[in-house]
Amino acid sequence: MEVSYERLQRQIRFVLEIDKMKSVYRKNILVDKSRNETDAEHSWHMAVCAMLLAEYAPEGTDISHALRLCVCHDLIEVYAGDTFAFDAAANVGKLEREKKAADELFAILPDDQRAEFRAYWDEFEEGKTKESLFANAMDRFQPFMLNLSTGGHTWKLCDATRAMVEKRLHPVKVAMPSIWPFIEEELDRYEERGYIAHNPKE
Amino acid sequence: MEVSYERLQRQIRFVLEIDKMKSVYRKNILVDKSRNETDAEHSWHMAVCAMLLAEYAPEGTDISHALRLCVCHDLIEVYAGDTFAFDAAANVGKLEREKKAADELFAILPDDQRAEFRAYWDEFEEGKTKESLFANAMDRFQPFMLNLSTGGHTWKLCDATRAMVEKRLHPVKVAMPSIWPFIEEELDRYEERGYIAHNPKE
Repeated sequence: MEVSYERLQRQIRFVLEIDKMKSVYRKNILVDKSRNETDAEHSWHMAVCAMLLAEYAPEGTDISHALRLCVCHDLIEVYAGDTFAFDAAANVGKLEREKKAADELFAILPDDQRAEFRAYWDEFEEGKTKESLFANAMDRFQPFMLNLSTGGHTWKLCDATRAMVEKRLHPVKVAMPSIWPFIEEELDRYEERGYIAHNPKE
Repeated sequence: MEVSYERLQRQIRFVLEIDKMKSVYRKNILVDKSRNETDAEHSWHMAVCAMLLAEYAPEGTDISHALRLCVCHDLIEVYAGDTFAFDAAANVGKLEREKKAADELFAILPDDQRAEFRAYWDEFEEGKTKESLFANAMDRFQPFMLNLSTGGHTWKLCDATRAMVEKRLHPVKVAMPSIWPFIEEELDRYEERGYIAHNPKE
């Protein structure tokens, strides 16, 4: 096989650039509460969740493809940073910021791979395919697990109400309706304990 | 779909248990040198490398399967810990320690998934299939990239000689012979700079 050094160098530059995913810290903390979680760790944990929870995915979901989306969905945050979901102000202009980051990051790659990796990100963001619906569900289920183990760490940061948390978990309800009753029960328990605020009275 | 709560609870217990992969620190440091890398981050980085470098894999490699091996190959380290490759003493009894950890960890899962996840680990360790050869190559290529970016951080920790580094990189030579000349050139450069020790004279 003839290897193009110019091509290999671009691939290697990309490998090194995305190392920054290990320095993008999320609002979630680890189960042992020792520190905040990084984007790289979150993406990895989502990938294992996708393998573990495959049986609850929409029928006909290509789990291997969903796995690729899990691994790649946050890459653009090496330039755009992590945006806290419950911070409305921080979310203004998020999509534009992330598109710019995607243009810049994927341009490092050879053309064919630029298109491939960009397509993973676009597919995840659009959330129209079964695979992207399932990957989006993992993106919400994984931090939900961390919240259950840390006294609702990110919920408390923003005094999240039950409605806010349910809205955030909506992709889980869509992609894995069979386990939604379990989620509801856990939320009931957390709301009772005061880790999630009651919805304001109408 | 009928969901077994007992089954789901075991899956969730596993999801939470493997969060410890974010607290198993490796000898490698990040490209920005801010801290040591975690097992979760290493596994994620390997998975992206497998997607990026697929074209150099042995012909007929199922990259999606290799991706699963990358994601799962270090899970048992939540109990067994990371063993520094260049520390001969620490490697005594490693396999036994890791087998015990595998028995314990995968027992959390429902039987079918216990067998599935155990099989990923066994396949990776045995290194007989194309997918496991390629995943093993990623397991060596990814820290090699970090070493190139950090002045040979782990090589210097143990005064690694050229022969030691080449032995460690052997799976890369086996699975991706087409890019081996590039690796050799980089090693030449690092040996010249003194980041890798010359082999002792015969």
